[in-house]
Amino acid sequence: MRTMAREIAGCEGATVTVSGWVHRVRELGAISFVLLRDRSGIVQLVYQEKVGFTLESVITVQGEVAANQKAPGGYEVHVSSSEVLAPAEPDLPLAVNQDLDGVSLDAILDHRLVSLRNPRIRRIFVVQSAILKHFAAYLRTRDFTEIKSSKLIGTGTEGGTGLFQVAYFEDKVYLAQSPQFYKQALVASGMERVFEVGTAYRAEKHDTPRHLNEYVSLDVEVGFIDGEHELMDLEVEILAAVFEGVAADCAEELELFDATLPSRAELQQTPRISHDDARQIASDRLGRRLFEINPEAERALCDWALAEHGVEALFVYGFPRKKRPFYTYPDDSRTRSFDLLFRGLEITTGGKRIHQYAMLLDTLPRFGLTPEGMADYLQIFRYGCPPHGGFAIGLERLTQKILGLQNVKEASLFPRDRRRIRP
Amino acid sequence: MRTMAREIAGCEGATVTVSGWVHRVRELGAISFVLLRDRSGIVQLVYQEKVGFTLESVITVQGEVAANQKAPGGYEVHVSSSEVLAPAEPDLPLAVNQDLDGVSLDAILDHRLVSLRNPRIRRIFVVQSAILKHFAAYLRTRDFTEIKSSKLIGTGTEGGTGLFQVAYFEDKVYLAQSPQFYKQALVASGMERVFEVGTAYRAEKHDTPRHLNEYVSLDVEVGFIDGEHELMDLEVEILAAVFEGVAADCAEELELFDATLPSRAELQQTPRISHDDARQIASDRLGRRLFEINPEAERALCDWALAEHGVEALFVYGFPRKKRPFYTYPDDSRTRSFDLLFRGLEITTGGKRIHQYAMLLDTLPRFGLTPEGMADYLQIFRYGCPPHGGFAIGLERLTQKILGLQNVKEASLFPRDRRRIRP
Repeated sequence: MRTMAREIAGCEGATVTVSGWVHRVRELGAISFVLLRDRSGIVQLVYQEKVGFTLESVITVQGEVAANQKAPGGYEVHVSSSEVLAPAEPDLPLAVNQDLDGVSLDAILDHRLVSLRNPRIRRIFVVQSAILKHFAAYLRTRDFTEIKSSKLIGTGTEGGTGLFQVAYFEDKVYLAQSPQFYKQALVASGMERVFEVGTAYRAEKHDTPRHLNEYVSLDVEVGFIDGEHELMDLEVEILAAVFEGVAADCAEELELFDATLPSRAELQQTPRISHDDARQIASDRLGRRLFEINPEAERALCDWALAEHGVEALFVYGFPRKKRPFYTYPDDSRTRSFDLLFRGLEITTGGKRIHQYAMLLDTLPRFGLTPEGMADYLQIFRYGCPPHGGFAIGLERLTQKILGLQNVKEASLFPRDRRRIRP
Repeated sequence: MRTMAREIAGCEGATVTVSGWVHRVRELGAISFVLLRDRSGIVQLVYQEKVGFTLESVITVQGEVAANQKAPGGYEVHVSSSEVLAPAEPDLPLAVNQDLDGVSLDAILDHRLVSLRNPRIRRIFVVQSAILKHFAAYLRTRDFTEIKSSKLIGTGTEGGTGLFQVAYFEDKVYLAQSPQFYKQALVASGMERVFEVGTAYRAEKHDTPRHLNEYVSLDVEVGFIDGEHELMDLEVEILAAVFEGVAADCAEELELFDATLPSRAELQQTPRISHDDARQIASDRLGRRLFEINPEAERALCDWALAEHGVEALFVYGFPRKKRPFYTYPDDSRTRSFDLLFRGLEITTGGKRIHQYAMLLDTLPRFGLTPEGMADYLQIFRYGCPPHGGFAIGLERLTQKILGLQNVKEASLFPRDRRRIRP
């Protein structure tokens, strides 16, 4: 029966079995101190001999637990027997047991299978797992159904650019940029409220700290809404539930990253600013006239929201029609759409969608689309679709901003970018 | 404030707003009875006039709730005002309000955006959503971390056949057949216990009732196991939790499909039979000598398990080495691997994996692989990997078998097969 490192404190005087990775070795004369790492934490092992372990070797050990104020957690294991389950080669390309602050992101990602052993890096993904848990759990309390749609599509709903092509037997298909088409179809089918957690693909060539070519999209779509403000209300509730859940499950991780999260009350103060006003506010703060809300403006707007409303987040609504996909519900030259900016970064795009068949038929030609080309999509609306809308949250961006990471790639286990296709 | 169909029974005498789809219209002189469908169920509306609704139009209605023993659920709404939110065209390609038993699967899938409106079909995916919920929930209670790995890979871990090629900028990559490489990497990284819910791809040309070219794989991988029987124990516990959860959340759906599920006690009786014994049992039951466990044998074995052990499931372990991928832990000419057959179908493949670097280096050439070609994969083991193993459950197959569907494609929202790439 294995005892986890975290449980050792309750086992003084008992003989236990612990297993894990050799995190650090320190030899003091004939005594060796080995820090053993398992998924729960680190425990000190004491050997009355020199040990020949290479770092990262996997071992399993029996011994008696004794108090020692100098040991991590205040207890250590005096080893009586010890076995190497898998020896490690001595040529680690990166330090697992040290801070990697001085190491380039490229080196960390090139050696991803080693860098993920670093406890600080691994814990990014413990937090990400908690985000996934609480996102789904909250939506289930609101009667949402989880869906899994195909990632192989005939054409892009966002227009034809930015798609990766797949050779599918004799056909050419594409990797879906979003489950937009499918989540709307399922609202219209009578599910009314759906969410999906799935990969999404953008064949865009920019290589920036905010882009991934493959990412996980947390998609939400809701029927029978009046307008986009209900969607913003829902997103605030989702984020409040996720932040509370992460704070409860990952207190240690948040402390490790020196991360704090807005409270529910703070999130509920998130201002909602029209696109025009947002441009004005950003222009004022940056001291020059902006024509669009670029990354610099996103940062300025979040600074403004923190100063004026006590929360590093804001919704920008009323985007111009030409900046939004064809399916966005129009409002004169504007749209019933929004972005959520959080800590200087857009983490969500959403809005009300066109649900009337006649309006869609009118709209397609304005975007250079034809009813024939969009026949599958149009069938959703031909047979009665309720007013609806939705949004998508980028999982890696949300993880990044929760933990204060510099680059979104740090929040992807195996990021794919312009040049990176492995490991 | 909208009232759901399911809540009407508690509202006698009250004026309510209900919204949904026109499921059926019956006119009796100057009175019209309309069945309105929403995500929760069906409610009868009574109009003192002829209504011009086409089926599937989306409407919202106010009216007073009155008891009527002849109405579904015993209550109906006497309409005082009514608005059409989205009219439906009258040329529905499939009946939404009737049993589709006589309709071909091809027609159902060709018109997927309409057939999903059929309440019986839609409810397949309500059950699927519950499976997703309870699979993840159970594993989280066992300290598993949810991961999201890349679906774009440089080479296949299962060998190079059966991969879909993706044009990735100047490179060629492939759609992953499984997250095998990544889930092993994360066990080795120190997460120890991981699960993933993600799409998987097989570019296989067969078009059968048991195959999909894109499916959702419920992947599990666990470190520090002694052998494959611990994995079977874990899978029994997962399925018991999923079945109990589905029974609790989806009682109506199970009744609609006349489906029953094995109890925890029954599942714990699941026999474990060696591959040799399984061939013998199937040969005996089918009255001829079998050389492999084909679909017919899978059915015969499940019949045997039900007759002998009271559960329509069995584990087959000890598959021959040449029938398993290179990473499977060997046991002379056999392997420490297993399948789970359930109700006549293989729904899981799993096993212990090779964790020793030296053993892997020895094994690669036997499978026509080179250390250079598998360099990324080998790095997992070069630096210490615990004994581990895992398995994958096909979400669509599990859904199919829970509900007793004839074809696995019925359990995929938007199936992709040899010829089907839309909608």
